[in-house]
Amino acid sequence: MSDAREAMATIVSQAQEAICRALEALDGGRFLREAWERPGGGGGESRVLEGGEVLERAGVNVSSVHGTLSSASARSMGGGRDLAQDDLSFRAVGLSLVLHPRNPHAPTVHANYRYIERGGDGEPGSWWFGGGSDLTPFVLYEEDARHFHGALKGACDRHDRGFYPRFKRACDEYFYLPHRGEARGLGGIFFDDLRDRPAERLLAFAADCAGAFLESYLPILERRCRQPHTEAERLWQLLRRGRYVEFNLLHDRGTRFGLETGGRTESVLMSLPPVARWETWKEPPTESPEGRLMEVLRRPREWAPEGP
Amino acid sequence: MSDAREAMATIVSQAQEAICRALEALDGGRFLREAWERPGGGGGESRVLEGGEVLERAGVNVSSVHGTLSSASARSMGGGRDLAQDDLSFRAVGLSLVLHPRNPHAPTVHANYRYIERGGDGEPGSWWFGGGSDLTPFVLYEEDARHFHGALKGACDRHDRGFYPRFKRACDEYFYLPHRGEARGLGGIFFDDLRDRPAERLLAFAADCAGAFLESYLPILERRCRQPHTEAERLWQLLRRGRYVEFNLLHDRGTRFGLETGGRTESVLMSLPPVARWETWKEPPTESPEGRLMEVLRRPREWAPEGP
Repeated sequence: MSDAREAMATIVSQAQEAICRALEALDGGRFLREAWERPGGGGGESRVLEGGEVLERAGVNVSSVHGTLSSASARSMGGGRDLAQDDLSFRAVGLSLVLHPRNPHAPTVHANYRYIERGGDGEPGSWWFGGGSDLTPFVLYEEDARHFHGALKGACDRHDRGFYPRFKRACDEYFYLPHRGEARGLGGIFFDDLRDRPAERLLAFAADCAGAFLESYLPILERRCRQPHTEAERLWQLLRRGRYVEFNLLHDRGTRFGLETGGRTESVLMSLPPVARWETWKEPPTESPEGRLMEVLRRPREWAPEGP
Repeated sequence: MSDAREAMATIVSQAQEAICRALEALDGGRFLREAWERPGGGGGESRVLEGGEVLERAGVNVSSVHGTLSSASARSMGGGRDLAQDDLSFRAVGLSLVLHPRNPHAPTVHANYRYIERGGDGEPGSWWFGGGSDLTPFVLYEEDARHFHGALKGACDRHDRGFYPRFKRACDEYFYLPHRGEARGLGGIFFDDLRDRPAERLLAFAADCAGAFLESYLPILERRCRQPHTEAERLWQLLRRGRYVEFNLLHDRGTRFGLETGGRTESVLMSLPPVARWETWKEPPTESPEGRLMEVLRRPREWAPEGP
């Protein structure tokens, strides 16, 4: 194992442990652990909590896999586009989580941080980092959006003041459903093919991002997870979760890549919500809570502006 | 309009009318009609029934659209692969329906029949027919499967005794989820690029298939739609509907083609169920009703064997 891969494996395992422990404390339920092996090479540990009091469905997975890509997968994988196509070996270490809280006032959240090596060492693009985290609320609380983005900006700024604005924009562009003309949620950060400085410095950045997850999300979950809600708010949450499903199955590169390369289906599709609804779209009134959410999904906003 | 297109437009409109009328009589509710225009050319009429007593969500759409394909869309469209790529104009007329009954004993059903013209007239592959119909039960009733397949086989046999076996096999191959190792349902028929005989004869075949829809499905819906069911059967239905969503968003060519070419999103995604669930898969006991369904989803069976 390369030093960077070994370091990343430690980072993601520690993050998995810390995140699951904090969530269990809040929920009262337990994550079920399942270690798995990938037939093509490597494996991982899935931790899943379903039917919790706070978390209706949650998955926090780590994996360390290796194998050989099809040339189509190699093209869609990102990074290493300048690599020779005759060495399609790859190694990847990552953390991936999606939390679907039960309460419609508590937002769904996703985070994923990964380190990838492709083909021979030392060639340009033979390794890179990718990842990000984004928030999908069903009821818009501006203070939650500012808190989430602020925490991510803090992690970014400690490494490069240019990261947050760049990765925030990339996130808005990536988590977008063209057929709906809507963003999936309020965004966050998204980066891929990151290899513009020594691996040690990017490892520190990835570690900081993964470490900032709880700080970015837990306070929001704590203040929303037991808030009273109406049946109409629940239905709206299920309808918006339908959009989440649409994004993940139609567009998400990680999902498609995972399924195409024979990833463990249950772990890849851990991102899907426990329940989702579809019905003919009725545009909510502009001044309703639903209308205010739609407004920001259609016109992404700045939530963590640069200080003076 | 070409004669074939005009004939197909009449066929699909009449089928839409007959199908909606019969379903309204059974359900007691009404299909809402919405005529729409496609910005790129043409339009259609969507008929939607949501929250019915029998039909939890149902869409019966006809469309007659025309425009210019991207070369990527042209490649994925089927037919006309031998056509010059410099004429990317197309015209398409079709009927598309998906019915999601409320009762878990009543199967979901899909049917789609379409006629397509591409590029200049008279060239090989410049027109073709496609379509099919398939059944997705949540509880396996062998008599329903035999009835459904038998009706489709009847329509096929009136035109070509080779059609049913060929299209049945194509259906099993098409409606398959590789990441689950499961068929979407019990199959039916599926054909594409059909242009091996004069258009008039294929029009008659398409008309017969569309006309056989009610005969293939309505008796099944009638006998299952008010059958008593348990909460566990409802949960199982929602979980299996999750697989339906997976197929449609990950694999269905019509869905992807519709969304990519700027089809009307609400009509294209009419196929999605009103409610679906995802949870970690627990293999049902082999001898349970759920286990018996899984068995046939994993090993497709013959439901309308050739008579002696």
